[in-house]
Amino acid sequence: MTRLITTIAEMRDIRASLTGRVGLVPTMGSLHDGHLTLMRRAREQSDVLIVSDFVNPLQFGPNEDYDRYPRDLDGDLAKVDGLADYLFAPSAEEMYPAEEPFQVDVGRIGTVFEGAMRPGHFNGVATVVLKLFTIIRPDIAVFGQKDAQQLAVIRRLVRDFNVPVDIIPAPISREGSGLARSSRNAYLDEDGRWHALALSGLLKDLSGRRMPAPELLHALEQARATSSTDVQWDYAEAVDPATFEPIDSSFTGDAVVIVAARVQGVRLLDNAEITVGT
Amino acid sequence: MTRLITTIAEMRDIRASLTGRVGLVPTMGSLHDGHLTLMRRAREQSDVLIVSDFVNPLQFGPNEDYDRYPRDLDGDLAKVDGLADYLFAPSAEEMYPAEEPFQVDVGRIGTVFEGAMRPGHFNGVATVVLKLFTIIRPDIAVFGQKDAQQLAVIRRLVRDFNVPVDIIPAPISREGSGLARSSRNAYLDEDGRWHALALSGLLKDLSGRRMPAPELLHALEQARATSSTDVQWDYAEAVDPATFEPIDSSFTGDAVVIVAARVQGVRLLDNAEITVGT
Repeated sequence: MTRLITTIAEMRDIRASLTGRVGLVPTMGSLHDGHLTLMRRAREQSDVLIVSDFVNPLQFGPNEDYDRYPRDLDGDLAKVDGLADYLFAPSAEEMYPAEEPFQVDVGRIGTVFEGAMRPGHFNGVATVVLKLFTIIRPDIAVFGQKDAQQLAVIRRLVRDFNVPVDIIPAPISREGSGLARSSRNAYLDEDGRWHALALSGLLKDLSGRRMPAPELLHALEQARATSSTDVQWDYAEAVDPATFEPIDSSFTGDAVVIVAARVQGVRLLDNAEITVGT
Repeated sequence: MTRLITTIAEMRDIRASLTGRVGLVPTMGSLHDGHLTLMRRAREQSDVLIVSDFVNPLQFGPNEDYDRYPRDLDGDLAKVDGLADYLFAPSAEEMYPAEEPFQVDVGRIGTVFEGAMRPGHFNGVATVVLKLFTIIRPDIAVFGQKDAQQLAVIRRLVRDFNVPVDIIPAPISREGSGLARSSRNAYLDEDGRWHALALSGLLKDLSGRRMPAPELLHALEQARATSSTDVQWDYAEAVDPATFEPIDSSFTGDAVVIVAARVQGVRLLDNAEITVGT
């Protein structure tokens, strides 16, 4: 039986009694198969698994509907049964008792790509994750590689604030076609799913290869310019994994190709690692 | 013998081996009697005392001379001998290996009073203190009440990020005259010291009393308006201890009276707690 914890004080008491490696999977609840995959990944590397279930108001913009974000604590508890030892589900008042709490300022990485679309979002993410790390003191924490920019923010968070947590990326889950799994895929019809393969198709052509920067930059430019009008690119770029600054033609080393596009009005994200060099 | 520690890895290893209550006194080095008072206060409440000795570049503004801030590690080691068990003195590269590190954003409290004079200062203070708390995991940490706004920032830091550290204020040390001790007092001549008593004199009249807000606000206005032209007030205000917002005439509860003034070109600070109510 998964034990439900709703207060920070109880979470701390229980943490103090735990031995062995403690794993954390932070979630905003409304759990689905993707979350369960993260949990299985965490279980492989930990003796005790804690799942946090908290809809973080700080990471919602004024035009994003925090109040209407789905919440289903009973359903979540049922889903993690047998997989997580503890479900930490504090209220917003428990996590943010004061007005205008101090926040982590992630600087420039919070203002580009997904951060440009959602001002303040990554500051809110970094703030709540730092709080969870301070309260729960996990040895490892698992984050999906699908949200590559979030993963980069979390890696810098633990580095810059010296938080002793190993950040474990969980690989992107894909359908047989290559399409990255997302609950939003349900909004695509058959034609849309076919067009959506432009994202994973581009990444499949590039990933795992070693390619000079000019060749990579040219390939991305071509992809953006020549794809079907049914695919509206927000971006398709190669970026530095730590800063999310676009690479230039003299770049060598590990990069991430990040892509975002709208297909049938549905916003799709994908990414892959690539080694840039001659 | 105080043991010198210069790397975060060694500090963590040693911390993991410590038992009992661990106390921390964060300093920027160039230790003087005021620091030793903070250390004695920390010793009273801890079994092991760690003093950090780090000139934090993040809390210096572009026009403040970080490079010329005095450093005297050998002198500091000699001074803490017999008082501190460990002196943690990492390099700037050890604490900030990356460019543009994530920082704590303290919000509005960082922009008023001392924060207005030093934009970004309190963000830098909060960032380094959070890092020290994460690395050292002290049970208690001592900060001087003299820097009231810094103390307020640190108290909110541990509250907002759920850091399990007890923040212990050390009372303001005063000369027989009442003048708050400061290394800057050495720049005052006899006449200047006499005028400087305007600060502590005002606080002495107010502190420990229970006074309605309108009466307190009137007293502060009078003090600013009627004092000698040899005392140039930056501010003399009653503020909320958590937010440092000036109280209004309907305020009740605990407040802090904060004063800053220039006497003979020397900037002096002082403060006192007061209960506001009918």
